[in-house]
Amino acid sequence: MSIENSAPSTSSLARRPKVVVVGGGFGGVETAKALARAPVDVTLIDRRNFHLFQPLLYQVATAVLPPSVIAWPIRSIFAGRPNVEVVMLEIDRIDCERGLVAGGPVTVPFDYLVVATGATHAYFGHDIWASFAPGLKSVSDAGKIRERLLRAFERAELTNDPTARARLMTAVVVGGGATGVEMAGAIAELTRSSFVNEFRRVDPRKSRTILIEAGPRILPAFQEPLAALARRSLEKLGVEVYVKLAVTECDGSGVSAGDKRFEAETVVWAAGVKASPAATWLKAAADGVGRVKVDEYLSVPGAPHIFVIGDTASIAMPDGKPVPGVAPAAKQMGTYVGQRIADLVAGKGNLPPFRYHHQGDLATIGRSSAIVSMGRLKLSGMAGWLTWCLAHIFFLIGFRSRLIVSITWIWNFFTMRRGARIIEDGELGSHDSNGM
Amino acid sequence: MSIENSAPSTSSLARRPKVVVVGGGFGGVETAKALARAPVDVTLIDRRNFHLFQPLLYQVATAVLPPSVIAWPIRSIFAGRPNVEVVMLEIDRIDCERGLVAGGPVTVPFDYLVVATGATHAYFGHDIWASFAPGLKSVSDAGKIRERLLRAFERAELTNDPTARARLMTAVVVGGGATGVEMAGAIAELTRSSFVNEFRRVDPRKSRTILIEAGPRILPAFQEPLAALARRSLEKLGVEVYVKLAVTECDGSGVSAGDKRFEAETVVWAAGVKASPAATWLKAAADGVGRVKVDEYLSVPGAPHIFVIGDTASIAMPDGKPVPGVAPAAKQMGTYVGQRIADLVAGKGNLPPFRYHHQGDLATIGRSSAIVSMGRLKLSGMAGWLTWCLAHIFFLIGFRSRLIVSITWIWNFFTMRRGARIIEDGELGSHDSNGM
Repeated sequence: MSIENSAPSTSSLARRPKVVVVGGGFGGVETAKALARAPVDVTLIDRRNFHLFQPLLYQVATAVLPPSVIAWPIRSIFAGRPNVEVVMLEIDRIDCERGLVAGGPVTVPFDYLVVATGATHAYFGHDIWASFAPGLKSVSDAGKIRERLLRAFERAELTNDPTARARLMTAVVVGGGATGVEMAGAIAELTRSSFVNEFRRVDPRKSRTILIEAGPRILPAFQEPLAALARRSLEKLGVEVYVKLAVTECDGSGVSAGDKRFEAETVVWAAGVKASPAATWLKAAADGVGRVKVDEYLSVPGAPHIFVIGDTASIAMPDGKPVPGVAPAAKQMGTYVGQRIADLVAGKGNLPPFRYHHQGDLATIGRSSAIVSMGRLKLSGMAGWLTWCLAHIFFLIGFRSRLIVSITWIWNFFTMRRGARIIEDGELGSHDSNGM
Repeated sequence: MSIENSAPSTSSLARRPKVVVVGGGFGGVETAKALARAPVDVTLIDRRNFHLFQPLLYQVATAVLPPSVIAWPIRSIFAGRPNVEVVMLEIDRIDCERGLVAGGPVTVPFDYLVVATGATHAYFGHDIWASFAPGLKSVSDAGKIRERLLRAFERAELTNDPTARARLMTAVVVGGGATGVEMAGAIAELTRSSFVNEFRRVDPRKSRTILIEAGPRILPAFQEPLAALARRSLEKLGVEVYVKLAVTECDGSGVSAGDKRFEAETVVWAAGVKASPAATWLKAAADGVGRVKVDEYLSVPGAPHIFVIGDTASIAMPDGKPVPGVAPAAKQMGTYVGQRIADLVAGKGNLPPFRYHHQGDLATIGRSSAIVSMGRLKLSGMAGWLTWCLAHIFFLIGFRSRLIVSITWIWNFFTMRRGARIIEDGELGSHDSNGM
């Protein structure tokens, strides 16, 4: 079926240009918002029914927050904007000539297209590692990691085999960027602090959290002194940090890196990303990680009405460095493309090229420390952490989420307890039953 | 492996009587709490890692609350009670002669045993109906219902076939007890109020919620005038209530009852329960729904050290009526059995027989009405609802949950919005694709 000209609000009007936005992440939502007052009909398509605030996903993976406070129904976001319709659909192809995007039997025609389909994990050619070392991009990834962590300690409590117990109580995080650092800090706090007093046979303080980075240091986006502070904070939480160590093997029992072997039940992959298949769908030129090379207006060269934004777009800053794959970049691109389309629809076409404004970098280490780098402002420790908290609370959607996340963090700060510790499935996993 | 004498806190002491409690619901948790200061070692076993506040589970199924605020890690509850250890294990047999409970290769010896394994849905011999009409006992049941409801409207928005659309926008609740009434009210509010303005092709106000009860009226536990008020409240929310109508068939496209047929995507089963297999494990006499017939001390006749409590126990009140399968009954039984075991361990054995004190009945209809019957106190409407809210908030475990649930209800009351509307899986379901 085709869902052409369907918005009830336009059926009695002359046909207005139809904008299709694929992807309800930061870029896609921002595009649709920027077009909410333009004389166009917008169809926002996502395979999920919710927009996810990914920067806090590691807190879902480590049982601090439930997913629903960082995931909002896309429909709710646009309830008051009658020219935006939301369609839950998984796209599998784009027909640029006929102006159609399609998923299974459903086709959606467009006059303007914005592709904002994001990125996924890259295992550097070892896709088999994905089953042993989940990445952290979706709610279901976070659920998998949380479940593996919690279940590992339940099983450690039930085994009499010291080798199996040590393995179950070890977690490895691969990748020393912001995601890897935040994950490692949160895992160490969960297992070494929150779990204390709750187990009778194992001592959670003997659990290990290991962070492995292939490059010369962690947090390369930050200046060296801040990154060094972060490393010391991590080590104070009990994280073992290894740099210049590249992973050579992930399997069902652990990770090999250089001449080292780490036996671990939980392995989290935070080492590399690759773009969604947008370049293939669009038959467009891509960079090394699959991102579509866009022009200075964020459109596909030769197709000024087709745009690619966010983590799936490749564009350089004036200094030649690539625009980073972070939420503020995706949002800036979304706003820009919304304005650009409104500009083209109005027949003007005089918007200057896209310029990315870097607002800064933040990374948090555990529940009371963070590093912040915003222009000349550098913060660390508690001051950094408070700045980090305020920045994240501010960007959450909705009063309810802000209030609940604030309360949860304050509660977590004082009690060290984690509220979202459900193992959804309930039954003990069958994939492995060391020592039972 | 056997996990005998394992609690580190007791390894250096003389052997103390070992109490095994199977089940971390209201009954099991209350038993372990009652024994926390007795000279015994308690092992609390559950197949899940959390205790669930079941009375609010219908709010998880209808996207009001995330599961984590009504599910607490059992370990956390007993963190400060060193004589209680928690084991996550699914029990599959009990050896009364040797004094062992076992799940797979793990055996746990006991001197005293408390079985509190609850109940599950009964489909009156039609177990095949379970796949079409999930009940509401576990977090995963609630997730299934929520996902089916939310997905149905996503699919209704994408279809051009009016018959398929009507079917997708219809939900049937089977069973007019408190659970069925609460589910029907919450579904009607979700689909007919919260969804308004969020869909462009379908009108959520045209969705149907149907409540079917086989008996002569809904809410038989309440006096007739209160039940009639509840029915009017339900009808005001748009619920179609049918009584004296028995379901004769559930299938992939709907429900048949009497001479009626209801085509519906979502069917919720709230019509009957049966006990867990405790009677089979214990080789004990059971009543018609599989509950173990216990003596006046809640122990199995002939085995004064083995107790069965909560929804899996069958015992009559002095007036001959059975003790109802509600949370307060399970908690009272748990407290009693804890005292009884402490009494037996102390060599006294003079605790009087168990007496159930009925505290009252509550049922809520939608987000601002409830009926309450506590002795001579009868409340309805907003007064009933406030009483219902306070009663439920009071019994939640932990300050954080109370605060978050309160905020969510206040927010929900004023905005009609539902916060927990994630379709976890994301992709459109493949089990059926009407009209797409």
